[in-house]
Amino acid sequence: MKKKSSNEMWGGRFAEAPDDIMQAVNASIDFDKRLYREDIEGSLSHASMLGRQGIIKDSDAEAICKGLRQIAAEIENGEFEYSYALEDIHMNVEARLRDIVGPAAERLHTARSRNDQVATDFRLWVRNRIDRTSAKLEQLILALLDQAESGVDLVMPGFTHLQNAQPVTWGHHMMAYVEMFGRDLSRFRDARARMNESPLGAAALAGTSFPIDRECTSIALGFDKPMANSIDAVSDRDFALEFLAAASICGVHLSRLGEELVIWSSQQFGFISFSDKFATGSSIMPQKRNPDAAELVRAKSGRLNGSLTALLTVMKGLPLAYSKDMQEDKEQVFDSADTLELAIEAMSGMIGDLRPAPERMRSAAAAGYSTATDLADWLVKELSLSFRAAHRATGQLVKLAEDSGIELKDLPLADMKAVCPGIVEEARSVLTLERSVASRASYGGTSPVQVRAQIKLWRRKFK
Amino acid sequence: MKKKSSNEMWGGRFAEAPDDIMQAVNASIDFDKRLYREDIEGSLSHASMLGRQGIIKDSDAEAICKGLRQIAAEIENGEFEYSYALEDIHMNVEARLRDIVGPAAERLHTARSRNDQVATDFRLWVRNRIDRTSAKLEQLILALLDQAESGVDLVMPGFTHLQNAQPVTWGHHMMAYVEMFGRDLSRFRDARARMNESPLGAAALAGTSFPIDRECTSIALGFDKPMANSIDAVSDRDFALEFLAAASICGVHLSRLGEELVIWSSQQFGFISFSDKFATGSSIMPQKRNPDAAELVRAKSGRLNGSLTALLTVMKGLPLAYSKDMQEDKEQVFDSADTLELAIEAMSGMIGDLRPAPERMRSAAAAGYSTATDLADWLVKELSLSFRAAHRATGQLVKLAEDSGIELKDLPLADMKAVCPGIVEEARSVLTLERSVASRASYGGTSPVQVRAQIKLWRRKFK
Amino acid sequence: MKKKSSNEMWGGRFAEAPDDIMQAVNASIDFDKRLYREDIEGSLSHASMLGRQGIIKDSDAEAICKGLRQIAAEIENGEFEYSYALEDIHMNVEARLRDIVGPAAERLHTARSRNDQVATDFRLWVRNRIDRTSAKLEQLILALLDQAESGVDLVMPGFTHLQNAQPVTWGHHMMAYVEMFGRDLSRFRDARARMNESPLGAAALAGTSFPIDRECTSIALGFDKPMANSIDAVSDRDFALEFLAAASICGVHLSRLGEELVIWSSQQFGFISFSDKFATGSSIMPQKRNPDAAELVRAKSGRLNGSLTALLTVMKGLPLAYSKDMQEDKEQVFDSADTLELAIEAMSGMIGDLRPAPERMRSAAAAGYSTATDLADWLVKELSLSFRAAHRATGQLVKLAEDSGIELKDLPLADMKAVCPGIVEEARSVLTLERSVASRASYGGTSPVQVRAQIKLWRRKFK
Amino acid sequence: MKKKSSNEMWGGRFAEAPDDIMQAVNASIDFDKRLYREDIEGSLSHASMLGRQGIIKDSDAEAICKGLRQIAAEIENGEFEYSYALEDIHMNVEARLRDIVGPAAERLHTARSRNDQVATDFRLWVRNRIDRTSAKLEQLILALLDQAESGVDLVMPGFTHLQNAQPVTWGHHMMAYVEMFGRDLSRFRDARARMNESPLGAAALAGTSFPIDRECTSIALGFDKPMANSIDAVSDRDFALEFLAAASICGVHLSRLGEELVIWSSQQFGFISFSDKFATGSSIMPQKRNPDAAELVRAKSGRLNGSLTALLTVMKGLPLAYSKDMQEDKEQVFDSADTLELAIEAMSGMIGDLRPAPERMRSAAAAGYSTATDLADWLVKELSLSFRAAHRATGQLVKLAEDSGIELKDLPLADMKAVCPGIVEEARSVLTLERSVASRASYGGTSPVQVRAQIKLWRRKFK
Repeated sequence: MKKKSSNEMWGGRFAEAPDDIMQAVNASIDFDKRLYREDIEGSLSHASMLGRQGIIKDSDAEAICKGLRQIAAEIENGEFEYSYALEDIHMNVEARLRDIVGPAAERLHTARSRNDQVATDFRLWVRNRIDRTSAKLEQLILALLDQAESGVDLVMPGFTHLQNAQPVTWGHHMMAYVEMFGRDLSRFRDARARMNESPLGAAALAGTSFPIDRECTSIALGFDKPMANSIDAVSDRDFALEFLAAASICGVHLSRLGEELVIWSSQQFGFISFSDKFATGSSIMPQKRNPDAAELVRAKSGRLNGSLTALLTVMKGLPLAYSKDMQEDKEQVFDSADTLELAIEAMSGMIGDLRPAPERMRSAAAAGYSTATDLADWLVKELSLSFRAAHRATGQLVKLAEDSGIELKDLPLADMKAVCPGIVEEARSVLTLERSVASRASYGGTSPVQVRAQIKLWRRKFK
Repeated sequence: MKKKSSNEMWGGRFAEAPDDIMQAVNASIDFDKRLYREDIEGSLSHASMLGRQGIIKDSDAEAICKGLRQIAAEIENGEFEYSYALEDIHMNVEARLRDIVGPAAERLHTARSRNDQVATDFRLWVRNRIDRTSAKLEQLILALLDQAESGVDLVMPGFTHLQNAQPVTWGHHMMAYVEMFGRDLSRFRDARARMNESPLGAAALAGTSFPIDRECTSIALGFDKPMANSIDAVSDRDFALEFLAAASICGVHLSRLGEELVIWSSQQFGFISFSDKFATGSSIMPQKRNPDAAELVRAKSGRLNGSLTALLTVMKGLPLAYSKDMQEDKEQVFDSADTLELAIEAMSGMIGDLRPAPERMRSAAAAGYSTATDLADWLVKELSLSFRAAHRATGQLVKLAEDSGIELKDLPLADMKAVCPGIVEEARSVLTLERSVASRASYGGTSPVQVRAQIKLWRRKFK
Repeated sequence: MKKKSSNEMWGGRFAEAPDDIMQAVNASIDFDKRLYREDIEGSLSHASMLGRQGIIKDSDAEAICKGLRQIAAEIENGEFEYSYALEDIHMNVEARLRDIVGPAAERLHTARSRNDQVATDFRLWVRNRIDRTSAKLEQLILALLDQAESGVDLVMPGFTHLQNAQPVTWGHHMMAYVEMFGRDLSRFRDARARMNESPLGAAALAGTSFPIDRECTSIALGFDKPMANSIDAVSDRDFALEFLAAASICGVHLSRLGEELVIWSSQQFGFISFSDKFATGSSIMPQKRNPDAAELVRAKSGRLNGSLTALLTVMKGLPLAYSKDMQEDKEQVFDSADTLELAIEAMSGMIGDLRPAPERMRSAAAAGYSTATDLADWLVKELSLSFRAAHRATGQLVKLAEDSGIELKDLPLADMKAVCPGIVEEARSVLTLERSVASRASYGGTSPVQVRAQIKLWRRKFK
Repeated sequence: MKKKSSNEMWGGRFAEAPDDIMQAVNASIDFDKRLYREDIEGSLSHASMLGRQGIIKDSDAEAICKGLRQIAAEIENGEFEYSYALEDIHMNVEARLRDIVGPAAERLHTARSRNDQVATDFRLWVRNRIDRTSAKLEQLILALLDQAESGVDLVMPGFTHLQNAQPVTWGHHMMAYVEMFGRDLSRFRDARARMNESPLGAAALAGTSFPIDRECTSIALGFDKPMANSIDAVSDRDFALEFLAAASICGVHLSRLGEELVIWSSQQFGFISFSDKFATGSSIMPQKRNPDAAELVRAKSGRLNGSLTALLTVMKGLPLAYSKDMQEDKEQVFDSADTLELAIEAMSGMIGDLRPAPERMRSAAAAGYSTATDLADWLVKELSLSFRAAHRATGQLVKLAEDSGIELKDLPLADMKAVCPGIVEEARSVLTLERSVASRASYGGTSPVQVRAQIKLWRRKFK
């Protein structure tokens, strides 16, 4: 009986019920019920338009809309009974509508097909999630701005190859991520603008002979305009791919920050610590404070890439127009949207929670001859050495210091002069961390003056 | 309160409860409860061993085992209440065990860590699913053998580039997939053999100072031997990657057959049809009979590739030993295992259900000068032309026939002789489909004699 | 000796030469020489700026610029000798510059690092390729517009699930791809706008203490502005990921059209044919005309996805700022850019070359009760049946016709009335292909009127 | 003229030359020339068999073989001129053969097609590279065994979540990788066994009517047996996918070790250092010693995953038998094979080169209460506390020590007793690193006794 109704959907032509395994592979209600709100929203605007255009009677349109609103309420209250045999959310809603409003329900699907219906629902869902994700990204940026501001002149080592390279400021490092997440935000914005067109009215694939008003449903659903080609409207899922790609790129940014949090919270680095709210313990090692959330955010990058690969593979080589393969689009997008949102929120929480350890950072920044470049630059500026010559000379001085097990600034002047005759006592002054950091005042550089200016600019954007 | 218990797990050192988002990102109980059977199985063998080795008292071991069996029953009867705060299946089971058997429960985790526990559970799960998947693959192979047998001399076009190339038999084509799925089977078998080693006893990462007997738990759990390095035991997930890769490769095979089913069931090809059990209709086009299941099987390849990509990304660059990133391993493997099993079953169903259309296949095979190669071969054999010369001559004859809009066999002998002086009437005989197919009797060729021999061999393998 | 020079680059501190395998894994000159033009362009603007700011002498700046132009000429004339020991294009150019202009060359790298240098070169390269790819995409769109125009009222079957669904026009189908490639174009445009910021002056990662003018080099290189954070400038490669993602999405579109070309050119479909310019033969089957180019374009989607996956994996979890892992960015982007360009050009060639077969398409469109929906719509409009009721009735009529082996339009009126009492003779009129196609005149529908309007709009865009 | 010859290959039927872009997308000679040795090897065995079976004259077979050997020599001496118009290595070789031996050359392709020819060549190539890769893996394992042996009782921190967890030995850590690479080796071995079957004689797809002896060519080429189904033989590339998957999994292992080398060589960890042979410097920071090779090996994981994704996508949904899409198989496999070999060699070099810093490791292992578990275990063993109770007590002691800023072993006994009344002075003894490490003597544990046993076992395997 359950099965019978599934094949009954295809009208009178199917005599036999579907095989169990056929139904198992085919049904999408388990996941596409997440589209209920969008499905009802789309149907409301479609029914209203049908009424307004005189394609169905006003009274039918009204009954349908009333029924749809009741269904929405039932679903939200957990009173709706999903039927697996009815395959998907669209048929579930329509079947219930028939229960509620009777024969009028059978007029809702006039001038529409599941193909344009599902494309509409799915675009609405993705659009909503882009908006939510964007809001979460803004919160993360604000958390980073707070960290940047409070540590704007906190000195830490800047790394390349995870080797101590040059001193930078904590604020500057935080602001690097603000730039990255800022670009992610703009990427989502572009994706939203590109996808915000209405497929509704494309019908199965060819458009319809009913005098529908696509402009009207497009406006009602908040789209910028109806899509211009009905085959394209039901066939393409590039908006889903673009969302997944933007999520993967954002996931890469999150994973990089996640990796840094893990490294920084190791005993060896000790640059940051988390409160009990964002650390976990171990069942066998009572002293552990594990940065689990940072690791998980790092790992989520894999999951996001997986969803992107999945849908890229699914869509590869599909002939137009609709193929059932495309049913695989939703779970990948749902999972990516949930994953990304969770990862962003967890990261915001960690950024808000973490406490930098200024002393650890500072002493790390001071080690490893990290201001050698400053000395090289001094040689260029004061002694007019060429860049490469200054570099060679500084290299020799570092080697000298290293061999004696001392810091550059502690090298006897005589030893310095042996390598570089013109050098004077004053050269030592550029070797302090503060001088180093403050001197890098070129636009976008690590100098606190520059960083403060950038923080101010970003604050203004979010006002 | 819910939260409190989560941090209480880490013993006495954490004062504060975890943040909500921390708990949301961290908890795995939603998916790892699927490991309950393996978790309890592992704990049973661990507890018994602890008792036998005198590490805990026999009475404690017995109480623990009895309690664990009760929990298994509770879970299977749907009476078990999962706690989100207890994070994962391991802590859920242990907490319930404490309720049931009291303090003795606190001795179960002696000489064990969640790290080796989860590695053990997960290996057991993957091993079980390899066995199930293998059984499903055998069923699919049997369905293909049935099709091959019933159509062993049914002629159809063999395609290259989706162009009619040479006539082959339906049986031969089915047997190509038997070979592919046969290799998939052996790939899973190899993966199973390689992964069937026990991590239990590796503890957190370094082994343990308790006098455990890893050989004994390994045997009890059906493993071939204990893993030889405790760090490796808790750190690596290559067995999961290998499962995912084997699933992806099998998925490619399934997708190729899925594509063929879709193409063959198009009106233009019309080579096969499905019963109502494996076709769906359309809400707007009453005449449609859609091969949805074939399309979905084809699409599942994307999903399998996605899971593989995901876990490859997650594992990339992870330092030893355990990192929380590895919690992402399970959902990918669960999804792949479920997806692959469903796809294989759906394919078995379709192969059993479909009916070839011999007339459509035959007439397609006859079109397009598909026996031109036979003529070329005849020229080589009978007139001692070189292969290339025979090829050129046949090409000219095809062009001649095509220009006159006739089949090769209908070319006047005189016209044939004009191109190829030595040709005689008998050459036409090689142009029939039956002769063509029967003549390809080289080992592995399409001749029904060869195909029957292969079917017999495969039947024997599954007896 | 060769090796010695490589370690000499690091100034005075390295005593030993690199291991052979170290050099093999490390050197990038084999592929990054493709950046020579951008590298020289970047150095020219840097040197001029250094001179203008008084950081180096004007005469040095001039000598450097003259030398750089000479090197560009040498490379373009094939006279430049690349040294593997000098590792990359940047060191190769600088070393040659030293040969040409002497010590002044050693001043070029003042206030710059390989980190910002390579980021600048690479952004310039990607930007150029976005422009080239965009131009190729415009050509493809023009080729599609030509096909659409010449076949604006050519009727073909519209497919869903590769089953004949409803008649559409060739023009409409072509225009679906115009929409897709149009979105690809806008995606590249967005990527270009987002990435067009100058990293030059970020130095190693922290900015510089020299009084450089980043605005000035940014303008000289055609960037919109300097990047606002020096760590971000040298660390991120999201612009490369975004390019790869846009290429992959475009590749999916190309693969779908490629698949259609393959299917359409099969003997069974016979909808199109290629001239000898775009078909290949077979070494053993003289009658074959293979759509190799279409298959290859379809396959290139895999290659594009591979590059995207590769770089997403590489960038995952990399701590800031520069890590050598990022050297893997270039080959993936080079390969994707070349692949995409080739695929687009091949597709343009095929679209220009192919000839549709109107009779084959028409008769295919007529088969399979493809205008059943039109009848259902007629029942709704004329007899006020509900959509679902009309659907059920039409389904029964199709079954009736199918059982008698006739077309819908040939059903006796009496039989029709038995199913649907109100039906009248006139209902047959909606069953012709032309009526069906013309009636779908909703915005974006397949009616030639709608399609012509869209063609006109797109033509205007490219004027 | 160049173009003409390309279409001439298809015999007499093509009038027009291919389009430039068609040739550009189609030609594979740029990369498939790497198959020259396998192509000639395959042709030699095919020609000999043809002669022996009397399909061609002995004298022709001899002439062909002589000619082929000459071509091999020409290619190896760099005297061979590749023609782009001849598309691929197979046609290039055959065309040259015609130059050398005249008409007899035209008989070589009897009973063969490019489809089985290329499948044979490619299998031979992959098989050879599996052997080479396996040899490289063995070298890497030997390098790790050497490191393990020389540091068998060197204590270092064992990490989980990159947090200091329990002390382990350097030898134990190295041996974890020996296990991983050992499994990689066995994975390649399984792949080799599965793929080592001969496609030669499958011809285009259907087998052949010539009385060939496939067993004989199979033996000559070192295959285990001829493939049993000719369609499968020319259609499938699962052997390539399996190779790519095994390479990706091995790449993950390499990337993990790469990451550890990067982290260990940071100033903060300082666990290892590289000689000048495996470190690079910086153009602006003279003090840098960058672990470039380790970073690149880590990054190569991305490239390997990319190739796997690429071919999985290409093969998805391809109908049988041969499609031109499959031409994309070779570059991905070539790149993966080269990449993996380079990465393994670089890793072997680094493992041989690196010097551990015992003092740094030891003091790191001592920090962070890393022997807390040992205390917990002592409480279980000596005071019969349950595991969980011991864990809680130890947690409190750690907190006490941490609050006082001292090590566990320095806690006053009175304070200890306050938490855990039964504790005695002797409990302190388990807190030393040596005791901790030596005590973990369970099979596979970190105790030097266990590690030595494993080293011995592995040494024996490679003798």
